[in-house]
Amino acid sequence: MASPEIEALTQALSRLPGLGPRSARRAVLHLLKKRETALDPLLSALDAVSRGLSTCGACGNVDTSDPCAVCADPRRDARSLCVVEEVADLWALDRSRLFPGKFHVLGGRLSALEGVRPEDLRIDSLVRRVAAGGIDEVVLAMNATLDGQTTAHYLAERLESYPIRLTQLAHGLPVGGELDYLDEGTLAQALRARRPVA
Amino acid sequence: MASPEIEALTQALSRLPGLGPRSARRAVLHLLKKRETALDPLLSALDAVSRGLSTCGACGNVDTSDPCAVCADPRRDARSLCVVEEVADLWALDRSRLFPGKFHVLGGRLSALEGVRPEDLRIDSLVRRVAAGGIDEVVLAMNATLDGQTTAHYLAERLESYPIRLTQLAHGLPVGGELDYLDEGTLAQALRARRPVA
Repeated sequence: MASPEIEALTQALSRLPGLGPRSARRAVLHLLKKRETALDPLLSALDAVSRGLSTCGACGNVDTSDPCAVCADPRRDARSLCVVEEVADLWALDRSRLFPGKFHVLGGRLSALEGVRPEDLRIDSLVRRVAAGGIDEVVLAMNATLDGQTTAHYLAERLESYPIRLTQLAHGLPVGGELDYLDEGTLAQALRARRPVA
Repeated sequence: MASPEIEALTQALSRLPGLGPRSARRAVLHLLKKRETALDPLLSALDAVSRGLSTCGACGNVDTSDPCAVCADPRRDARSLCVVEEVADLWALDRSRLFPGKFHVLGGRLSALEGVRPEDLRIDSLVRRVAAGGIDEVVLAMNATLDGQTTAHYLAERLESYPIRLTQLAHGLPVGGELDYLDEGTLAQALRARRPVA
């Protein structure tokens, strides 16, 4: 058996999503063999992140700075705000570089099943941001799930009294989607939201 | 974009075998969200390993102690020695708990193509271990590859003058192997090494 330290490292790695016990062991072996190029960089990177780790007071993003890199970016249009469920969603939209505005992370979705109520999410701070003014458009970018849409509905009600344009992501055929492989829900959405051919 | 620290961490993780850019990002998000249960344990485990990391002077295993946990284990039979190509092979055999003796890691295999010569491997130290005496059997556990078998042949020549039993892993049908799916090489081995039915 390997030493307790190495076992502990294998354990810690195997708990990461996408890594099982086997791949964790392979990763550990890689780290042990490539000390300078793999282990030390990972160690210092983890250390740096661990030191600076904080949740952005403005948008709820996790980053090593508060306000986070996105909120601090002066090139971003503060007049449009995109509301997402999770930090992962923010990162995905940010990577796509399609949305020039700022973000607001709810930290989850309303769920009767899981007992997630409005006060459990970062909703009041969203309303405060909108109430503070200076925002023209709020894009509700919830997941196209039941809970996600319930959350979008609830947010729409909470925000309807403010002078903003309230929009949500379009639902329909995914790019490359083939009709006979799509679920009925998606087809219904695509049909309901059909548009005149330009 | 995320902060440089987080980018660096994603980079470092994506270089691990079994993790690509996408899964590395998922892992980072997991680490950021689960600070106490994921990030800190991984950090301290890496740190502990990094501090103690060393190559075992006796067998060439990588561990956080020298001699390594395997060599230091008094329950292991020092009279039989299993020679493997890589640390990964040692770990695999050790996990199987099938070999009660000690190990010797060559650190690779002889390869004309990759220009790996005997002096590039931990072969002299192996010969010294055998020459020192106290070893009854040396098991050559090279991979069943051309280079692996070339290495086994070379080791056999280097060790033939010593009063030891020199053995190598059996080659043949893998457990669950079906004849019509096996390559000719394996079939040839299985046929050549056929044994009387007990």
